Amino acid sequence: MVTDKSIVQTKYFTFSQPPNELPLESGLKLGPITLAFETYGELNANKSNAILILHALSGDAHVAGMHQGDEKPGWWDSMVGPGKAFDTNKYFVICSNVIGGCRGSTGPSSINPKTNKPYALSFPMITISDMVNAQRFLIDHLGIDKLLCVAGGSMGGMQALQWVANFPQRVRSCIPISTGLKHSPQQIAFDEVGRQAIMADPDWKEGNYYETGQPEKGLSVARMLGHITYMSDQSMEDKFSRKLKDKNYSFKFETDFEVEGYLIYRGDIFVKRFDANSYLYITKAMDYFDLSADKLIPENKTLDSRFLVIAFKSDWLYPPYQSQEIVRLLKSRHVHSSYCEINSTYGHDAFLLEIKEETRLINHFLSNIFKG
Amino acid sequence: MVTDKSIVQTKYFTFSQPPNELPLESGLKLGPITLAFETYGELNANKSNAILILHALSGDAHVAGMHQGDEKPGWWDSMVGPGKAFDTNKYFVICSNVIGGCRGSTGPSSINPKTNKPYALSFPMITISDMVNAQRFLIDHLGIDKLLCVAGGSMGGMQALQWVANFPQRVRSCIPISTGLKHSPQQIAFDEVGRQAIMADPDWKEGNYYETGQPEKGLSVARMLGHITYMSDQSMEDKFSRKLKDKNYSFKFETDFEVEGYLIYRGDIFVKRFDANSYLYITKAMDYFDLSADKLIPENKTLDSRFLVIAFKSDWLYPPYQSQEIVRLLKSRHVHSSYCEINSTYGHDAFLLEIKEETRLINHFLSNIFKG
Repeated sequence: MVTDKSIVQTKYFTFSQPPNELPLESGLKLGPITLAFETYGELNANKSNAILILHALSGDAHVAGMHQGDEKPGWWDSMVGPGKAFDTNKYFVICSNVIGGCRGSTGPSSINPKTNKPYALSFPMITISDMVNAQRFLIDHLGIDKLLCVAGGSMGGMQALQWVANFPQRVRSCIPISTGLKHSPQQIAFDEVGRQAIMADPDWKEGNYYETGQPEKGLSVARMLGHITYMSDQSMEDKFSRKLKDKNYSFKFETDFEVEGYLIYRGDIFVKRFDANSYLYITKAMDYFDLSADKLIPENKTLDSRFLVIAFKSDWLYPPYQSQEIVRLLKSRHVHSSYCEINSTYGHDAFLLEIKEETRLINHFLSNIFKG
Repeated sequence: MVTDKSIVQTKYFTFSQPPNELPLESGLKLGPITLAFETYGELNANKSNAILILHALSGDAHVAGMHQGDEKPGWWDSMVGPGKAFDTNKYFVICSNVIGGCRGSTGPSSINPKTNKPYALSFPMITISDMVNAQRFLIDHLGIDKLLCVAGGSMGGMQALQWVANFPQRVRSCIPISTGLKHSPQQIAFDEVGRQAIMADPDWKEGNYYETGQPEKGLSVARMLGHITYMSDQSMEDKFSRKLKDKNYSFKFETDFEVEGYLIYRGDIFVKRFDANSYLYITKAMDYFDLSADKLIPENKTLDSRFLVIAFKSDWLYPPYQSQEIVRLLKSRHVHSSYCEINSTYGHDAFLLEIKEETRLINHFLSNIFKG
């Protein structure tokens, strides 16, 4: 049994037999593909207790527990572990990194085996559907036919919905959190400004920066912007108000306000751990995401999967009305679904922070589906 | 009488006698100072019909009418002219550009008479209060003791409020639109990301780019971000939805969605007309803006000025609650004030677009104050 804060390791799965090239939505192919993933708990004998957790834009496979030598646990450690929302005493939890990323899975910073150089922009454009199609081979590899649940927040929620769209027979339940059926023009717009900031940086060099160092300034600007959209007006007021770094205004172009210092700090640490080209590819995948109309459930069809859709009142990046659109669609197709809107002030970040409410909802939802 | 769409000219006023150096909030001084301004209508005999209109971040003195050879009228032409909200048959309307700008008034791109070179970053930091203190000399120059009204949207509204704070005896009424008593951390954060985008551009050269060309890419990113905040989620959906530029996804880092093309276009035209250093200075002035607590009206004092405070429901950059804070303060000090929240979907841009509603409100408000 994996215990809370126990040491975990990221594992790697490479497609080594056909199909070793994945056909992509663009018409191109990608392969061989490596996926980074972690698992927690034990798969039961009839393989009915597997939950796949999907991560957001800058997340990775390390959802919970500690890596040897690290000081911080995984990104959703408060939700995954013994007795937690995704209770690893009962469930076998898998978290898979996405293709296109830079956290162990094949992405633009990976070595292209055909050239022995990083792909850079020769990496094919990928979509949320491509990410999920790759994960399917990991789930096959783990010997799991049907997942008890697919769950995730933000882009993780998009992947969860896409799992249902691509493999409806392989998903017993789905928990999309802080997400929607498609990216809106405002969501596309924020992503595009981030991409333009990266591509405006001369260090980007059309993506060929792997020998010279990445476009840190541009990527940092993109991340700073991201952070504004992850918080709410209210949570920024609560956290920073107009507090100054020093006693008085500098009357210079320096950091006057704590909120400025925070954003710059978040930008600075991000560029140390994330690849700018991955940022471009993954945001583009999110912008292409569109399961509206009949793309989640084909016309005149229904689904056996059950849904728990969670949104947060102050999330203005993925506003509750987008979650309500998911629920409206599900209800119109007679799919079993519950909708919960949590009264949080944390904005989009709430899905990482409102642990108590999420735990209560998810525990209850899963225990109704999984009877051991 | 100035007629609608008639040809107008920008005029320039330079402080040529003491004080030819304006003391600034930073403790530094600036001078000589030129202000670009335009006027419309006629000042009446007892000089009681003068209205000062203040502009937003990227605005200028050209609020209405046509410049010789131009194809488009001033930025608020639908509001200023004979029979309009600010009726130039009745009122003498003045619009003054701000110091720190680049549209004819003294700013960082102006020649510093002491060095015969552009100020660049040797231009002193300015505040909204400094802008207003400079305008006061223009109003003196025009021979006006008491303004019938000060009015403006966004940063124009901040200047209107600051006029009341600095010169309460010289303002009979005030119309702050789509604004607040202070910049919130979220507003500061958006400005800071824009500034970081400009300063990350190597063409910025610590502000010394006047001989080599300005940091167009950085300034364009800042403007693109600005445009997202000026619209609303709803108005972007109404205008762009997920409409594609071409028939299919490009699967490249090119413009796929119309909203992307729109933002890039707005960025491109902005860098042709606006100075990057002015963008830095003016956004900083907005971030420093804070008339909360007793700074608008000193403790235990009241005001004779009358207020019409206007906000727009979908404005999330300067949300209605910030306008309500102004009104709450005014009511608590027994200042005559009306609050109107207009049910628009246009976001912050609404103050430039909801002409019919604004006209009705402002006409009524002004005619109650001005009896001829």
